[in-house]
Amino acid sequence: MMNGAESLVRTLLASNVDVCFANPGTSEMHFVAALDRVPGMRCVLGLFEGVVTGAADGYARMAGRPASTLLHLGPGLTNGMANLHNARKARSSIVNIVGEHASDHLQYESPLRSDVPGAAALASDWWRVGGAGHGIARDAADAVTAARSQDGQIATLILPADTAWSPGGEPVAAAEPPALARAPAEGMRRAVEALRSGRRCALLVTGLALEEAGLPVVARLAGAGIRVMASQSNRRVARGRGRLVVPRVPFAVDQGVAWLAGLEVLILAGSHPPAAFFGYPGKPRMLTPAGCEIQALVEPGGDVLHALAWLADELGLPGMARPVPAAEAPTLPADGRLDADNVMQTMAAMLPEHAILCDESVSSGRSLFRFTDGAAPHDYLQITGGAIGSGLPMATGASVACPDRKVVCFEGDGSGMYTLQALWTQARERLDVVTIILANRSYRILQGELKGVGIDQPGEQAHRMLDLVGPELDWVALARGQGVDAVAVDTVAGLADAFRGACARRGPFLIEARIP
Amino acid sequence: MMNGAESLVRTLLASNVDVCFANPGTSEMHFVAALDRVPGMRCVLGLFEGVVTGAADGYARMAGRPASTLLHLGPGLTNGMANLHNARKARSSIVNIVGEHASDHLQYESPLRSDVPGAAALASDWWRVGGAGHGIARDAADAVTAARSQDGQIATLILPADTAWSPGGEPVAAAEPPALARAPAEGMRRAVEALRSGRRCALLVTGLALEEAGLPVVARLAGAGIRVMASQSNRRVARGRGRLVVPRVPFAVDQGVAWLAGLEVLILAGSHPPAAFFGYPGKPRMLTPAGCEIQALVEPGGDVLHALAWLADELGLPGMARPVPAAEAPTLPADGRLDADNVMQTMAAMLPEHAILCDESVSSGRSLFRFTDGAAPHDYLQITGGAIGSGLPMATGASVACPDRKVVCFEGDGSGMYTLQALWTQARERLDVVTIILANRSYRILQGELKGVGIDQPGEQAHRMLDLVGPELDWVALARGQGVDAVAVDTVAGLADAFRGACARRGPFLIEARIP
Repeated sequence: MMNGAESLVRTLLASNVDVCFANPGTSEMHFVAALDRVPGMRCVLGLFEGVVTGAADGYARMAGRPASTLLHLGPGLTNGMANLHNARKARSSIVNIVGEHASDHLQYESPLRSDVPGAAALASDWWRVGGAGHGIARDAADAVTAARSQDGQIATLILPADTAWSPGGEPVAAAEPPALARAPAEGMRRAVEALRSGRRCALLVTGLALEEAGLPVVARLAGAGIRVMASQSNRRVARGRGRLVVPRVPFAVDQGVAWLAGLEVLILAGSHPPAAFFGYPGKPRMLTPAGCEIQALVEPGGDVLHALAWLADELGLPGMARPVPAAEAPTLPADGRLDADNVMQTMAAMLPEHAILCDESVSSGRSLFRFTDGAAPHDYLQITGGAIGSGLPMATGASVACPDRKVVCFEGDGSGMYTLQALWTQARERLDVVTIILANRSYRILQGELKGVGIDQPGEQAHRMLDLVGPELDWVALARGQGVDAVAVDTVAGLADAFRGACARRGPFLIEARIP
Repeated sequence: MMNGAESLVRTLLASNVDVCFANPGTSEMHFVAALDRVPGMRCVLGLFEGVVTGAADGYARMAGRPASTLLHLGPGLTNGMANLHNARKARSSIVNIVGEHASDHLQYESPLRSDVPGAAALASDWWRVGGAGHGIARDAADAVTAARSQDGQIATLILPADTAWSPGGEPVAAAEPPALARAPAEGMRRAVEALRSGRRCALLVTGLALEEAGLPVVARLAGAGIRVMASQSNRRVARGRGRLVVPRVPFAVDQGVAWLAGLEVLILAGSHPPAAFFGYPGKPRMLTPAGCEIQALVEPGGDVLHALAWLADELGLPGMARPVPAAEAPTLPADGRLDADNVMQTMAAMLPEHAILCDESVSSGRSLFRFTDGAAPHDYLQITGGAIGSGLPMATGASVACPDRKVVCFEGDGSGMYTLQALWTQARERLDVVTIILANRSYRILQGELKGVGIDQPGEQAHRMLDLVGPELDWVALARGQGVDAVAVDTVAGLADAFRGACARRGPFLIEARIP
C-alpha cells in the first residue's frame, strides 16, 4: 500500500499539478522519496524559500494553473511568506505543502516546533492540517481546488510527518473550482446607468481582463471612448505591438491624484479602489477626487470577463474593436553613458518577440511599463504586493512554465539582493532568463519617499540606510558564484551588445547595468 | 515638540538600547530621520531582514542586552521571522520595531497592507501597536522591559507611520524587568531528595548556567560527582581551556538514547525535557529511558543560577569547585586533503584567545563542540531553533557587540546561502569576522535524515533535492561580490595558512574549505 506522501504526490499529478518548487527538510523526506517512485512531478530546488514561493508565483501567472511548493515546517513557510504575500495580492494560484512534526511529537518542545497552523492562516486563503480526518488524498485535492478558486488563491496543506509515512488512501483528482462569481445585477445596472449618464466615468480593470484573452473585450469598451485604466499592480498584462495599451494608475500619490482629477464615477471591475501605496502626511489616502462615486461592478476574484462583455453588449458596442491605435515602436537610444531612461529604452527596443518581462525595478525602472507600450508583443509580470525580492524568483518560475520563451527580468540591486539565490536555480535548471540589474547603488525609491513623508534634508545616518555603497555590490561576481555568466556595462552600446549576446544563446545570463 | 519617532529613539537610548539593526522602508522613514537628530544610536543596515534579526540575536547573546531591529511592515517582519524563531528558542532578548501604515490608511486595500499584528503575535512573546493609548515612549519602554524579562524575550512594537510623524511625548526609561522566577520549594526538595537517594540522576542545564558567571556553580555540582549535562541547543556557552566541560545531549536520536540509557531521574534546570529533534518512525520521541523520572527544578526563563547555588549549598558542596579536569589541548592535524574532521581539528587548534565561535555547521561540523573542549577560551554560539540561516547574521551581530574579539563563524554551504547577505554588512561595518564555509556541496544533514526516516535507497530526484551541485557554489565569488575578501582551500596546510592570515588582520574574511 502506498504511503501518504505517495498518495499526495499522485493526487497532485491527477489534479494537473506537476511542478513542485522545493526546499525540503527532514519532515519532508517521504515526499521527496515519493518523487522517485511516481514519475511526472518536476521538482525544482530553491536555496531559500523566498525563491521557492516566488517561483511558484511566476509559474502560476504564466501557466495559468498552480504549482506546489514544498516547505520545511514553520520557518520554511515564514521564509517564503513575503512572496506568498505578493502572490496573494496578484491572485496567483499556489498549493503549499508544508511539512510538520509527527503528530505525536508536537507535545514535546523541540527546536523546530512552532505554530505552523498560525503561520499557514497568516499566509493563506485556505489551509488545513492534512490526514486528520479526510485522508491526505482528499486534503490535497481540496487544496488544489481551493488554489484554483476565485481566480486564484493561496492554499496551504500542512503535512505531518506521520501522515506522510503512514499508509495513504487512493489518489483522487481535484474537483473543478466553483464558477467565478458573476457581477450582481444591481452593480451592472448602475454601471450602465453611469456610463450613459454623461458623467466623467472610468473603468478600473485588473486580472484576466488584462491578459491576451481579456484585452479584446476591454478594447470594445475603450474603442467606444470609455476611459479604461488598469490597477497599479496586476498579475499579468499582455502588452506590446498590436495590443491595446491600458494605462496603469500611477504609483506616486501626486501623479495619481492629477491623473484621476475630475473623475465623477469610477467603476471597479475586479479591482480595489485606487488607494495610495502608502499614507503620507498631508496627502490624500485615496487617489480619486473627493466626491467621486466608486462603484463595484464585480468583486476581486469574480468573473471580470463576463461582466465586461455583458457591459459591452448592453451598451450595444460592436463585437469587433476599432483597430488598436499603434503605440510607437521603441528605437535604440543614442550611445552614451547609461542612465535609467536609456536602459529602459534599450530594453524596450530590443525586447524579443513573445518575451516574458518580469519587472521589479521599482525606482529606476518605474517608467519601463510606458517605454514598452510599443515593444514586441510580450507578457508583463510585476511585483504586486510591495514585498521586494519577487523579481528573480518570479522570472525563474515563469521560465519553468514557458521554457520556449525568453524571460527578461528587470531588477533593482536592492530588491535583487533579497532573493539572489534564484540565480542558482536558473543555472541548475538551465532556464532561459536574462536578468538586467539596474545598479543604482541605493534603495533609490526611499530617497524619494523620504521627501514624500516630509523629510527634506536627510543626514548621514539616514543616507547610510538608503545607500548601497561602502562596499558596492559586484553582481557579476554574485552571478558567477552561482553558475550564471554575467557582465557589467555602463554604456548604451555595451548594454545592447551584451543583451544581443544573451538573446542569441539559451540559458541564464546577467547584465549589471551601472547607472547613476 | 519632538515627533513620535524621535520620542521612540530617545526612549530606546534611555533604556540602554543603542544599536538598531535595520532594513527600513517608507513607513519607517521618520525613525531613520530621527537617528540624525538623536546622537548615540548605531544603526546597522542589513540587505535582507533575516540578516537583521539574526544579527540582533547574536548581539543580544554577546551583549547581554537587547538591540532593536527596524523592519518594514508585515513582509519585513516575516522575512526576519526564521531568525526570530531561533532567537526565541535561545531566549535572546530583542526589541523589534515594525513599521505599519498610517492608522487611517489601513481601511484601504493597498499592496503592502497585511496582518502585522498577526505576524507579531506569531513571532513574539510580547507585542503591542504603539501610540494607541499609552504614548509611544511608554510603549517602547514597555517593549524593552518585556524583552529583558524572563531571561530574554522577543518584544515587537508596531509603529504606525502617523504615530511616528505625530507629536510624541517625553522619552522615558524602561523599568527593570521583574526578578527571574525562583525555583519552587517543592521542586528543590524533590531534587535534593533524588540526588541523595542513590538513584542514577543527572542535571540538565542551559541558559545562564553555561555562561562564564554560571560555570563555577555548575562546577561545584559536577565536582561532587553529580552528572551535569547541557541541552542540545544553548544560547551561549563559555568554553575552552580552564573551563568546565559540560557535555551536550547528542543531536541524533540513537546516540541520545544510548547516552541517557540507565538514567533514573533527570532534573531540569531551565531546560526542556530532551525530546528528539524530529520524530522518526519506530524511534522514541523522548531521549530519556522509559520510566525515567523527569523533574523540573526551575522552569525555562527562571532563576537557574539561584536554584543551582541553593542546591549546591543544600547538598553541602564546597564553595570552591575541584580543579576542572583539563581537556586536552587540540593540536594541528597532519597536512593532507581536507575533510570534516581535520577542518574541525585545525580550527580548534588555531582558535584565537577569547574568540567568539558561531556554529551553524549542522552536518560536517557536528563534532566541532567536542573538538573545541580544550581550545583557547572562547564563547560558543549555535543555531538554536533549527531554522538554518542563523550563522552568518549571528556572527555579524556578535561582532557588533564585541568589536575587540575575533569572531569565527563555522558555516555550512547550504545554511550559509540562506542569509549570505550578512557578508555585505560585515564588510560595510568592517567587522572582525572570519567565516569558514564547510563546502560539502550538499544538504549533507538530509542524506542522513533520509536513512533516519526509513529511506535507504534514494533515487535521482531525491538526490537532486539534497545535492548542491550542477552548478557548484563559488563562495569566494559570493564573498568578493559583497566586498569580503576570500580564498578557497582544500588542504590542511592551506586552511591553516589562510586562517593565520585572516587572524593577523582585522576585518571580515571568508575561507571556503572544500571537503568531501
